[in-house]
Parts: sequence; structure tokens; C-alpha cells
Amino acid sequence: MSELMYLSSKPMFVHHLKNLSAILKTAARDAKARGIDPAVILNARLAPDMFTLTRQVQIVTDHAKGCCSRLADVATPVFVDDETTFAELEARIQRTLIFLKELKAPQFAGSESRKIVMQLPIGTLSFSGLDFLNGWSLPNFYFHYATAYNILRHNGVGIGKRDFLGVVPGMKAKGEIAKMMAAKPAVKAKKKKKQKKKKKQK
Amino acid sequence: MSELMYLSSKPMFVHHLKNLSAILKTAARDAKARGIDPAVILNARLAPDMFTLTRQVQIVTDHAKGCCSRLADVATPVFVDDETTFAELEARIQRTLIFLKELKAPQFAGSESRKIVMQLPIGTLSFSGLDFLNGWSLPNFYFHYATAYNILRHNGVGIGKRDFLGVVPGMKAKGEIAKMMAAKPAVKAKKKKKQKKKKKQK
Repeated sequence: MSELMYLSSKPMFVHHLKNLSAILKTAARDAKARGIDPAVILNARLAPDMFTLTRQVQIVTDHAKGCCSRLADVATPVFVDDETTFAELEARIQRTLIFLKELKAPQFAGSESRKIVMQLPIGTLSFSGLDFLNGWSLPNFYFHYATAYNILRHNGVGIGKRDFLGVVPGMKAKGEIAKMMAAKPAVKAKKKKKQKKKKKQK
Repeated sequence: MSELMYLSSKPMFVHHLKNLSAILKTAARDAKARGIDPAVILNARLAPDMFTLTRQVQIVTDHAKGCCSRLADVATPVFVDDETTFAELEARIQRTLIFLKELKAPQFAGSESRKIVMQLPIGTLSFSGLDFLNGWSLPNFYFHYATAYNILRHNGVGIGKRDFLGVVPGMKAKGEIAKMMAAKPAVKAKKKKKQKKKKKQK
């Protein structure tokens, strides 16, 4: 059960933070190509009382580090929310990935039933680790990740759901969809990879 | 581990389908109040090459029933995608909830390592149950749920993230945030209720 807490949190956050990083790089290139001030995209919102793209990305990283640190029972690193460029957002994502990298599966053992307490300026939230992951962290993380994606789509950035999902970990594909999803073919491609490596080394 | 597969899927889908149902009711009321043809909202998109609200809602239900049926190893019910009104979308959500209700925790036992094969018109996807849940079903479900929400926010419907999250299962709250999240108070309210009852009886 404990291994599942780890597998359902850290590797998934890492996976999607890398996807988000790639999406933001596409967005930065796109702004340049279209001659749009990056700040316009970074400050874009879907509604006047919704957060900007920059804030959405900050919150995505907050939920990733907030969830994993609490499940692993270590202090949550605090980031100052002062990013104003694509490069700074990328640095924040990388800082989050570096923090997550240090957290190992055994630290998540038993976290499903451990009490998680979140001290906030306006009160306290508490849950079991499992309720915290399923009812708080994952919905919040995906909400802000999807909203960041939607802001970019709404502003004409050429990304698709494949970019959002990334190369789905452990998924194998056969037929037309294999190419669409950039997934591992159902027949193992290990040999091909080795051949490619060899070619590169040449 | 198996109980966790159940707890991380069915109850979460049920929870959010009920949230989505409430959000769509708000949207329908809002359209009426503002004198907007409901079809305008139902056909709204965030980008010309993204799906409409109606399609987003259909896909949300598809991922909920598709995920749980496969993890529980029963046939996935097929719904015709012919909804054109808020009432019909509500009926689809309710049909999904009725289907999910019949699936019990023991049916999910061992699903984390069982091979899940999705036959699609354009090929086949396969995963372990755990990879299917974490890398396919949850990201897809939340993606379309958040996008449905974002379409409504973008069109001025008065909903907030509290509606998206719903009353987080198992969460207890203290202080200002308790009211904001409509959560159970951290100090059990049973005793207080009893005391109030007693006072009333006096």
C-alpha cells in the first residue's frame, strides 16, 4: 500500500512537471516567432478573476513539492513567488524537480494513514495522507496544470493533449495510435535504441 | 495495495462527477438568468480546435466509467454521444454514477498489476492497472473536467475552485478557511450538536 502512495505521487508529479517545462518552452518559442511580448502570455488569464499563467505554474510546483514533502514527512521548501519570465519559471520547475529527486519511496511508507496538517494563514487543514493525495493534491495539481495548458491553447500556442499527457509511463501502443502518442511500441524497441546510441557515439 | 486502487479511483470519480453535475446546474441557471441560449454555452470552446463543453463533459464520464470498469474487469457501458442540452448531460452523469455505484472494492483487488488493454479504432493501448490509473485515467479525467470548468469560467459563470474541488472527502478545517472550503470542522461537531440539542430540549 505504501509503495502505491509513492508511485501515485512523486513519479507522476515529476512526469508532468517535465511535460509542463516542455510546454512552456514551446510557448516561449511561439511568442518569439509571432513577435508577442512574452509578458503578454505570462500574464494571460481565462477570466479576469482567475490567476495568470505565471501564477498557475507557481501553484503547480507548489502542489508537487507540498504533496511529496508532506507524504515523505520532510519540510516543504518555500519558493518566493517572484518569477516574471519564462526562464525564471523554468528555473522554478527545475528547483522543484531537484527537490523531488531526493525523496525516496521508503519515506512515503505508511503515509496513507498518517495525519497531514497544513498550516495556512487563514486556518488549518488536516487529512489522512490518502485523502490529502486523492482529494487535495492531485485535483489541485491537475487543475492548475490543465489551466496553464488551457491559457496557452486559448492564446493560440500550438500544443496538444499529447504534450499534456507526455509519453505515458508504462504505456505500450500498437497501430496508428502508437505514433500519435509517441508511446513505446507494444513490441519492445530496446534493440533499436541500442543501435541509435551506437550511431550517436560514432 | 488493492484497496488503494479502489479508493484512488471510484470514490474520486463519483465525488467529481457530483461536483460537475452541480457546476453544470449553476451554468444552466446562469444562462437562463442572463438570457443566453444554453446551446451557446454548451457549444463554447477555449480554442477553435478544442472540444466544446458538451464534448468535454462526455469525455469526463467516459474516463470515469472506462477506468473503473477496466480496473474492476467488467464491460464498459457504451453511451451514444448525442447530448444537446444541460438536462441530457445531467442524465449522462447520473447514468455514469448508477454504473459506478454497482462496482465494489473487492472487484478492484489486484488491479494494480493486471494488464489493461484498450482496443481503439486506431490501435491498442496497454498498461498495468496502476500505470493506467495514474498515467492515463486520472490525468485525462482531470484534464477534461478542468477544461469544462475553464470554459464556464471563461464565459462568466459564477463558479469557483471550491465548486471544482467540492467538499474534500475526509478533510477537516479550522479557522477562516473552514467556511471557505465548506469542510467539516477539525473539532468534531458531534458533541456540540448534542449539546445544542440538549439546550434546545431545555
